[in-house]
Amino acid sequence: MSSAKQFLSDNAAAVHPKVWDAMRAADVPDSPYDGDALSQRLDEAFSALFGRDCAAIWAATGTAANCLALATLVQPHGGVVCHREAHIEMDEGGAPGFYLHGAKLLLADGEAAKLTPEAIRTVIDPIRDDVHQVQPHAISVTQASEYGCCYLPDELRAIAALAKERGLGLHVDGARFGNAVAFLGCSPAEAVGPADALSFGCIKNGAMSAEAIVFFDPAAADLARYRRKRAGHLQSKGRFLAAQLLAMLEGDLWLDNARAANAAAREIASACGERLMHPVEANELFVRLTPAEREALRAQGFAFYDWGADAARFVTAWNSDPAAAAALARAIGGL
Amino acid sequence: MSSAKQFLSDNAAAVHPKVWDAMRAADVPDSPYDGDALSQRLDEAFSALFGRDCAAIWAATGTAANCLALATLVQPHGGVVCHREAHIEMDEGGAPGFYLHGAKLLLADGEAAKLTPEAIRTVIDPIRDDVHQVQPHAISVTQASEYGCCYLPDELRAIAALAKERGLGLHVDGARFGNAVAFLGCSPAEAVGPADALSFGCIKNGAMSAEAIVFFDPAAADLARYRRKRAGHLQSKGRFLAAQLLAMLEGDLWLDNARAANAAAREIASACGERLMHPVEANELFVRLTPAEREALRAQGFAFYDWGADAARFVTAWNSDPAAAAALARAIGGL
Amino acid sequence: MSSAKQFLSDNAAAVHPKVWDAMRAADVPDSPYDGDALSQRLDEAFSALFGRDCAAIWAATGTAANCLALATLVQPHGGVVCHREAHIEMDEGGAPGFYLHGAKLLLADGEAAKLTPEAIRTVIDPIRDDVHQVQPHAISVTQASEYGCCYLPDELRAIAALAKERGLGLHVDGARFGNAVAFLGCSPAEAVGPADALSFGCIKNGAMSAEAIVFFDPAAADLARYRRKRAGHLQSKGRFLAAQLLAMLEGDLWLDNARAANAAAREIASACGERLMHPVEANELFVRLTPAEREALRAQGFAFYDWGADAARFVTAWNSDPAAAAALARAIGGL
Amino acid sequence: MSSAKQFLSDNAAAVHPKVWDAMRAADVPDSPYDGDALSQRLDEAFSALFGRDCAAIWAATGTAANCLALATLVQPHGGVVCHREAHIEMDEGGAPGFYLHGAKLLLADGEAAKLTPEAIRTVIDPIRDDVHQVQPHAISVTQASEYGCCYLPDELRAIAALAKERGLGLHVDGARFGNAVAFLGCSPAEAVGPADALSFGCIKNGAMSAEAIVFFDPAAADLARYRRKRAGHLQSKGRFLAAQLLAMLEGDLWLDNARAANAAAREIASACGERLMHPVEANELFVRLTPAEREALRAQGFAFYDWGADAARFVTAWNSDPAAAAALARAIGGL
Repeated sequence: MSSAKQFLSDNAAAVHPKVWDAMRAADVPDSPYDGDALSQRLDEAFSALFGRDCAAIWAATGTAANCLALATLVQPHGGVVCHREAHIEMDEGGAPGFYLHGAKLLLADGEAAKLTPEAIRTVIDPIRDDVHQVQPHAISVTQASEYGCCYLPDELRAIAALAKERGLGLHVDGARFGNAVAFLGCSPAEAVGPADALSFGCIKNGAMSAEAIVFFDPAAADLARYRRKRAGHLQSKGRFLAAQLLAMLEGDLWLDNARAANAAAREIASACGERLMHPVEANELFVRLTPAEREALRAQGFAFYDWGADAARFVTAWNSDPAAAAALARAIGGL
Repeated sequence: MSSAKQFLSDNAAAVHPKVWDAMRAADVPDSPYDGDALSQRLDEAFSALFGRDCAAIWAATGTAANCLALATLVQPHGGVVCHREAHIEMDEGGAPGFYLHGAKLLLADGEAAKLTPEAIRTVIDPIRDDVHQVQPHAISVTQASEYGCCYLPDELRAIAALAKERGLGLHVDGARFGNAVAFLGCSPAEAVGPADALSFGCIKNGAMSAEAIVFFDPAAADLARYRRKRAGHLQSKGRFLAAQLLAMLEGDLWLDNARAANAAAREIASACGERLMHPVEANELFVRLTPAEREALRAQGFAFYDWGADAARFVTAWNSDPAAAAALARAIGGL
Repeated sequence: MSSAKQFLSDNAAAVHPKVWDAMRAADVPDSPYDGDALSQRLDEAFSALFGRDCAAIWAATGTAANCLALATLVQPHGGVVCHREAHIEMDEGGAPGFYLHGAKLLLADGEAAKLTPEAIRTVIDPIRDDVHQVQPHAISVTQASEYGCCYLPDELRAIAALAKERGLGLHVDGARFGNAVAFLGCSPAEAVGPADALSFGCIKNGAMSAEAIVFFDPAAADLARYRRKRAGHLQSKGRFLAAQLLAMLEGDLWLDNARAANAAAREIASACGERLMHPVEANELFVRLTPAEREALRAQGFAFYDWGADAARFVTAWNSDPAAAAALARAIGGL
Repeated sequence: MSSAKQFLSDNAAAVHPKVWDAMRAADVPDSPYDGDALSQRLDEAFSALFGRDCAAIWAATGTAANCLALATLVQPHGGVVCHREAHIEMDEGGAPGFYLHGAKLLLADGEAAKLTPEAIRTVIDPIRDDVHQVQPHAISVTQASEYGCCYLPDELRAIAALAKERGLGLHVDGARFGNAVAFLGCSPAEAVGPADALSFGCIKNGAMSAEAIVFFDPAAADLARYRRKRAGHLQSKGRFLAAQLLAMLEGDLWLDNARAANAAAREIASACGERLMHPVEANELFVRLTPAEREALRAQGFAFYDWGADAARFVTAWNSDPAAAAALARAIGGL
């Protein structure tokens, strides 16, 4: 794990020095839970970021952020439309079932783990409006998607329009929201579209243990605050989480970090050509590589995960070494 | 909040420098979640502390620790006997109902928020062994209790014997376990007794955001790991939580910190005499004070919570200023 | 169990011939679930009974009726104020915890298992409006109460006023609602007051397996329909449940049956004098009787439950034999 | 709905006269809930039927039966492998999510809605044994399947062997178990195989409101009894449910009824030839019919459901009129 050539994941990357500084600065007496001065600044900071009134609370993990957000949009007898390969379906250990009290994930298909209005309709249109079938209550999309692809603002608006038409809530899992904004070159507001709630990811992007849940309907945040406590996620020294979030927003650190990760990914992608399974828009690469090729790369010290039998996943992070990325690009190019 | 004369709570106290140091040292590349080298050391470290095989996992809050522990002992249709003023009943926002899927807290009385075998029997003996009434599955005691009082090893053993006789699990909420051990002067093993699981509190005692859940049946920890992930409590940079716990154990920092807090409490208690509502055994004082007396203390800069109409609660912490404690003692003595 | 002298409970009493007739008549082809002609008549029938628009659905047990009703009023992180001896607390095997996804029962005291505004305030006023404590979402009262006593219309109105003031829902458990109306001599509307939902009990009153859940906000019934299906309570041959309910309403059978049960109870009560622990207003008697006295009664063939060490509970039913009631009265009088 | 030509479903069919007789005979004083003499006979009756010790309890719906059975096999953080078109996935309004506290259905494919060991492995083999993914705890198969096809004893044994190898429970949804046994011509024991629990369906087969849940591990029944009460499914006049089940078993009424339904289905099938989408092994037919053809049949008075755009579903019942079945066969033959 000590190598700079590590492209396993961004989820355990180092903590950014500015985040450390902010955490140390937060070690002064203040109110417990989220009564401290820093936590109290979150609503304003995120309202400024998104250019509209919103309420923001911290949570220690993306799973908690996603589930607490969804719990404001979905009743226990309802369902959430998401992509078949969404994190909430594949990687959260059943947390949505827990937080939503048995509500169901309704799985849709779509290129590059992105939903489309058509894909959503394919799932919800056959659902009879009767009590025998779980009714959809919300849609959850991931920006950037699990395959590192981004929703264009128009794509999001089309999904939001469908959500509105059908009376569904809209949640955006933004575990890598910064990477998406960095790619899209649009405003944060455009990148989240007219969603109801956003999991604004920081941990993969330089923070230690804080994600923001942003509610564009502030009343939903009040509900989420009860649910957060009930889930054991209301930390008593919450100022250390708020400090992380504010440090990420300060001077657009979140965007700078995401740009660095994206740049490293693009560098590697430049050598991958036809090997790429998906466009590289954020900081993940899914690359066709035979077992022998993977072995060759690993022999040169590169660390990454296999992706099925004939491919590999590489993830860059805010602190990926550009030289290591370039070396990996050369190594792939030379296969 | 800036005053050294703050005796509101220990729950938001500063982070101990050694904890900071350990966290900084943990900012090296390692596996995500609890696959890192530090998290992997927890079982051994706590087995050494308790002198028997146990498994330990981290969680970010005492509420999560308590509920994840209880979830290994209680089925959704069961109940947990606890004191009427236990933290799980009074202060966790219904988290046990969430984590235990609707299991019930069965409330017992007892001096100083401590249970006794008699008090437990008063609750469980009238429960008919039929499906119409919620059956007890576990007992939860708090060491030290919500009123700052400690179970003697014999008291715990008597409760554990009852638990065993009735086939009930036994959980110890040790949010202030260090304060109890410091007071009792016994081994950690004696202070937890033959329990099944312990919430080993660190956050009130100098850590930032990590409690340990110690399972004396290691198989229960395997179950708890699934439940922890499902509750969104499996942090990806878990090494920073493990680092806190190991720092607390290192050189018995947890015990030193607790001793300091207890000493400050004793100092204050020395001036309270008949005013004390409960013996001061840990780091909490419940002191009869009229509104006028409380006002007089606050006028001198002391911060604390009212406790009903005619009393106040003072809590000391690992970093309570001895001079401030002495000043408070003098101020109370001079009322 | 063959004796006419059975005063154990009304919960397993015979099915009224008119209910049998209605069930037999329902054995004609019709739509499944609640699409049949009989189920479709329930809204109108109960609207007529209560003199205002309401929606009514069937459920097979009082426990299901209570819990499905409450689930429309209480969110998973909320609480229900009820009497410490309410059926939902004492006798439903934790069903509220299941149906309400871990919401909490908040227990109040009160004479004869009846709540008062004061008793409710004693429970809810100390609850801080913060996330650490479970907030009340609803109040549940039992008409007639678990001790066979009835809320006067004014008493209900006072509770409803408090509920409204605090933004709480109001549920009436009417497992013995007929007995209450028979005693009060008022209209059904007055006996339920301005409640949101009523469990209208029939099973103890001559039906076989059908209770009505009456929603005075018809939109709540739509929600309950989803929850009923989700709880496995949507029977495919629902016409047989609807038939029972309609038979009970037809010609006020429900009221006639309740009057018969109440009359038998009054007959017995007339001999009890000072022995009565509670006024006998419905069909339950709680009678101070020594073990020897109880033995003497049982020796004469009377069946009933002990109520603690020094009392007995007698319950009459729609089909209690007046001669047996008179005989029991004589027997008690003769002790 | 009055027509003999109704082939919509068996779920609302008439109640068999012998079931009515048994219910009437049960209207004698007895203990409430399942303490009555009839309910007490269920274990023995089903043990005799299956030739091994088992415990049987009643429930009012197939949904409740399935979910109560599964709740003994699956923990809240686990999953149940079932067919993508299984009743528990498609038609129970999310009840498994409710009863299993958020556990997940893991969907497998398979011809005619039947699972195979291969199909199950395709679902469970890719699940990493870590906390990020929901682990399978049980398998649920439907006998006969949702497309009216039956598992041969060897097929069931192969699935059971896989279940055992992987430590999974095995549940059989026998909503139409009688139809399967009638087709297979084997013993009930062979038709359920080495399963842990069976939902033994009666309602579609001549009962009114009672299914049996048969536990081949009697200890599981004890657990299910608590869960049944907690779900509001413990009826106080349970003797009327037990009476239905015993009437169904008496003289193999369940088998006679199923045979009659199957015979009617075979009669219709004989005219369908290549139109059949699945073999007709039980009492359901899925028949390719154009909209015009369906209209033609309906013009002749036949009632049935569309099955997608180009097919129809016909379901026969214990009381299907042979003449009507023959007429339908002729009508289809004549298209």
